[in-house]
Amino acid sequence: MTPWSHDELVEQLRAVGREHYHDRHPFHVRMNRGELSRDEVRAWAANRYYYQKSIPIKDAVLLSQCPLREVRRLWVHRILDHDGTTEVPGGIELWLRLGEAVGLSREDLESDRHLLAGARDAVDSYVDFVRTHSWIEGVASSLTELFAPGLLRQRLDALERHYPWIEHAGFDYFRGRIDRSQRDGEEALGIVLRHAVTRADQESAVDALRFKCGLLWAQLNALSPAEARP
Amino acid sequence: MTPWSHDELVEQLRAVGREHYHDRHPFHVRMNRGELSRDEVRAWAANRYYYQKSIPIKDAVLLSQCPLREVRRLWVHRILDHDGTTEVPGGIELWLRLGEAVGLSREDLESDRHLLAGARDAVDSYVDFVRTHSWIEGVASSLTELFAPGLLRQRLDALERHYPWIEHAGFDYFRGRIDRSQRDGEEALGIVLRHAVTRADQESAVDALRFKCGLLWAQLNALSPAEARP
Repeated sequence: MTPWSHDELVEQLRAVGREHYHDRHPFHVRMNRGELSRDEVRAWAANRYYYQKSIPIKDAVLLSQCPLREVRRLWVHRILDHDGTTEVPGGIELWLRLGEAVGLSREDLESDRHLLAGARDAVDSYVDFVRTHSWIEGVASSLTELFAPGLLRQRLDALERHYPWIEHAGFDYFRGRIDRSQRDGEEALGIVLRHAVTRADQESAVDALRFKCGLLWAQLNALSPAEARP
Repeated sequence: MTPWSHDELVEQLRAVGREHYHDRHPFHVRMNRGELSRDEVRAWAANRYYYQKSIPIKDAVLLSQCPLREVRRLWVHRILDHDGTTEVPGGIELWLRLGEAVGLSREDLESDRHLLAGARDAVDSYVDFVRTHSWIEGVASSLTELFAPGLLRQRLDALERHYPWIEHAGFDYFRGRIDRSQRDGEEALGIVLRHAVTRADQESAVDALRFKCGLLWAQLNALSPAEARP
């Protein structure tokens, strides 16, 4: 099998996003229309927290699989971005503040007391996927970042407009994340283009991204069984 | 079983170092007396490289096991310290320069062509240990850093004095490492004292340090079977 050109591989990856990214899930569509109840917004924030807190674990697993120093050097900032430092709050801290802004306590989030089994399973399967696949597939699975900026902008706009009861301090997560997603997506794409060079590796990268889209989607299905879609 | 006080635990850990740290191995004793041949110095540098390059992998495994953000925040710099950045050479790069200073090529080290089975097994068993034990035991296994500054100072002095054929640019690894070992050892000790609070966890921490001393020792046994000691 002839390897795809860079353009062809990028198109394959973008096609996965167009078809499977969770911006099209009914729950997100309702969120963006301002149709979620307070309880639904709270359930979403509490369940998505489990994803947030698992991301640095997933990235550490990925680093531990990668024998290339130059790739680890590029990747390690993601752990810092989520965990933060003593000076700079990371993504996990900002998500806790979002939780507070929608009326939950830190304890609500940190205890996982509102975590649904389906959302937990989806996230755990992600960490597991990265543990049991090549580091290139791990990197490829992060390429949902390529599609994130549009969704994040739309979401920030929708939350500000339609949910005036949410304290604005809660939006800092999204404000910082839009630019960072853009950068991270391009960085990961560069790594995949450089290192997935055989057709088999390229197809595995596309499959990894499809898997990742599936588990983001599964988290929303868990939140809203009545509008669950395959 | 009553937990040890902090002082008692520190004493238990230091006792392991006094008895099992590899500064007392005959190969190191000869190194410090200036009695190693050029080939022995080269074999040591080439084999120890495998340890150096595995350390960030081990630390990524450790991060991936640790659910505490505040501990991951403390630990992540170790990966950066070894891998370096585009601006600052890390420990792995400095060890490659040491290899060149003793007359090996980068390719000699990076290809593992001089790597002995016993040295490889010892290092692989370390990564495996961290993967299969608690993150606190992983942290405790790093406490050989507590004993490293003395050995590093002695080694730097011995190399400069007794091995004038080694290019001095090769010593940068040790120069930077003395202070960093001190800091890293104290940091890891603080984590162990805070988090190993039951007597069982404290004993596991001591066992982890004993295991680590054993594998440093095993690397030297592999290098010099004639003077191998249990």
